[in-house]
Amino acid sequence: MTDPLTPSATDPATRPIVRLRPKAEARAIRHGFPWIYADELVTDRRTQALAPGTIARLEDSERRAMGTVTVNGKSKIIARMLDRDPEAVIDRAWIAARLTRALALRARLYPEPFYRLIHAEADGLPGVVIDRFGDVAVIQPNAAWAEALLPEIAAALVEVTGVSAIVKNGQGRSRALEGLPEETLLLQGMVDGPVPVRMNGATYMADVLGGQKTGLFFDQRPNHAFAALLAKDARVLDVFAHVGGFALAALAGGARSALAVDGSAPALALAEQGAAAGGMAERFATRQGDAFDVMEALAAEGEVFDLVICDPPAFAPAKPALEAGLRAYERVAMKAAALVAPGGYLCLCSCSHAADLASFRNASARGIGRGGRRGQILYTGSAGPDHPILPQLAESGYLKTVFFRLDG
Amino acid sequence: MTDPLTPSATDPATRPIVRLRPKAEARAIRHGFPWIYADELVTDRRTQALAPGTIARLEDSERRAMGTVTVNGKSKIIARMLDRDPEAVIDRAWIAARLTRALALRARLYPEPFYRLIHAEADGLPGVVIDRFGDVAVIQPNAAWAEALLPEIAAALVEVTGVSAIVKNGQGRSRALEGLPEETLLLQGMVDGPVPVRMNGATYMADVLGGQKTGLFFDQRPNHAFAALLAKDARVLDVFAHVGGFALAALAGGARSALAVDGSAPALALAEQGAAAGGMAERFATRQGDAFDVMEALAAEGEVFDLVICDPPAFAPAKPALEAGLRAYERVAMKAAALVAPGGYLCLCSCSHAADLASFRNASARGIGRGGRRGQILYTGSAGPDHPILPQLAESGYLKTVFFRLDG
Repeated sequence: MTDPLTPSATDPATRPIVRLRPKAEARAIRHGFPWIYADELVTDRRTQALAPGTIARLEDSERRAMGTVTVNGKSKIIARMLDRDPEAVIDRAWIAARLTRALALRARLYPEPFYRLIHAEADGLPGVVIDRFGDVAVIQPNAAWAEALLPEIAAALVEVTGVSAIVKNGQGRSRALEGLPEETLLLQGMVDGPVPVRMNGATYMADVLGGQKTGLFFDQRPNHAFAALLAKDARVLDVFAHVGGFALAALAGGARSALAVDGSAPALALAEQGAAAGGMAERFATRQGDAFDVMEALAAEGEVFDLVICDPPAFAPAKPALEAGLRAYERVAMKAAALVAPGGYLCLCSCSHAADLASFRNASARGIGRGGRRGQILYTGSAGPDHPILPQLAESGYLKTVFFRLDG
Repeated sequence: MTDPLTPSATDPATRPIVRLRPKAEARAIRHGFPWIYADELVTDRRTQALAPGTIARLEDSERRAMGTVTVNGKSKIIARMLDRDPEAVIDRAWIAARLTRALALRARLYPEPFYRLIHAEADGLPGVVIDRFGDVAVIQPNAAWAEALLPEIAAALVEVTGVSAIVKNGQGRSRALEGLPEETLLLQGMVDGPVPVRMNGATYMADVLGGQKTGLFFDQRPNHAFAALLAKDARVLDVFAHVGGFALAALAGGARSALAVDGSAPALALAEQGAAAGGMAERFATRQGDAFDVMEALAAEGEVFDLVICDPPAFAPAKPALEAGLRAYERVAMKAAALVAPGGYLCLCSCSHAADLASFRNASARGIGRGGRRGQILYTGSAGPDHPILPQLAESGYLKTVFFRLDG
């Protein structure tokens, strides 16, 4: 096995060469498409023998250099573009330059250091996600090259941001696709319980070692802000609340009360800690249980709310689940609509890659109609600007958050 | 000719009946689709004789009542749903109820009375647009029924909002499609020069009697706010600036300087008045001329900016203009990209109905590439929440505002 890091990463002269097939989409790649699929690359025995994550020189079928890529024969995305410069040295300084550029954007956007710092391809580090919670950073190395170069990434991260603790979060589907094991551990520093995170005037508690994904979702931030705007003096219901993303923002926005519903008792406990940290505990309540059951129970109790939010897990993560997923979104909308006061607001979210905006919006509108209501759409949100996307992958915007106002 | 207002509007018993053809989309209409196309309605001699704007009772092909509609035989949209109640009395009180509901949303969203108050179908007043500039309201009655009932709409507007002056703005394509004449006039009260409008910390001057559309565009407000966030300490270029929508918001957000480019000297004069009113005149400059010419001249002068915004008029207002329109957007992107500093920001907008988001985004990315640059997409905005849409017409979201960050 070739060592993926040395010398191929740092010495371009010794770097293996991989070559596009004649019919590969060389033009798309030249125009910025960052991925090479397995059937586009000549996969001779030498290429097959490359260790996952190996840094290589990409050439087109006429042997013209196209850039520096990382190769993983175990992945459908067999190569990912690291740098358009075929002579690029992929070392700590190179990583630090990408981090510095990403940091400049976030520092401009946010008054405090709570954000997604690296959003993979669009931030120039393919397959790498880094979330920042003040002095703590959580790295998701979801591509083999990043797993191999993790010590360099961690060192560059400390150098550029000054964080004192770094967690490696190795959960999730993406790593399996790259043939990487599940593993979550503290790479350096100390993490002493949940980390307080300030967003939209609220304090959230992020369990960076034990939580879902990286302990807190930054992607809904602008949509939390819009909910907070609608929430003044409102009774708010946050279904699939996790650690209270919408509920705590709504309370910070002046909600009269907020009820958070989730299946996870630990997530709700973190939400309660967040509410307490923000001095909003007396306006906050939680209810643990299945979301559908709880919505039905609330309806049976005759409860109504001025603002209801449903941010469920991905019901349609991939194509085969699409139909069933859309039916589930429709059911969520129907159950939730019944709980919205006359003239009140309903926020429905989907983080399903397979369900595009039009499909999700239609399923939601159908569900609202089946719930005997009509609605107008006020605002359609997506992930915040700390989740940039490449224009060539723009269809991949997974998050859709649609705010409806229901009839009076 | 039947009088459209009396008695058909206010006396359901005397109302003419119009009937769907057997193959019409009755189900879509029952589910909230608000329009009946000409080929869906039985257009016998009696229906043809109805005055444009007549209020009628809609029945399906089996004579079941579906609601109260307004009929205009001159329009492709031959009928528009006013109320699902076939007995609805369409009078001042009915209009006032719709206005009250719309006002409740805007009052929740905005600290000051500057917004689109009525956005047509989604706000329950088909074809009617009302923009509010503090004590002045501008009505666009873009459907025949609203032209006929304009005195009632104006009276209800005063009753609900307390505005002291009302302008009728009868410009634009939509009125022509309804067979209505162009006409702009003061319906009541006094308008003494441009009206100061506060948004995003800036002051804008709206020429409600003489300007484009209603004198000021409220739809870009959330996108102005995002530009302002990026603009701190930045040199900003606002091309197709109109009265300075992006430029003045950027200055309010702390931009070092802003240059507004527009073909219209009166629009730029209003922008200058706005800058002066906001105490930002010394950071603000204007340049009158053709946008493409000015961008080329700036490039020739070696000028670069940290944030460039291009918000051109609709290059592809309708299908036949789509190809040429997309080429024009590509050209805008190419010229603008050349003016963006390394690592700077580029905001590209389209208000073309015919160009969907994916087409516009692709044209923009192609243009950026032809300008020798690459970009990541940070944020894709649409019209603000004072421009609600019906889910059944959601494809009609016309405004797309895409923020790119360009390479370093």
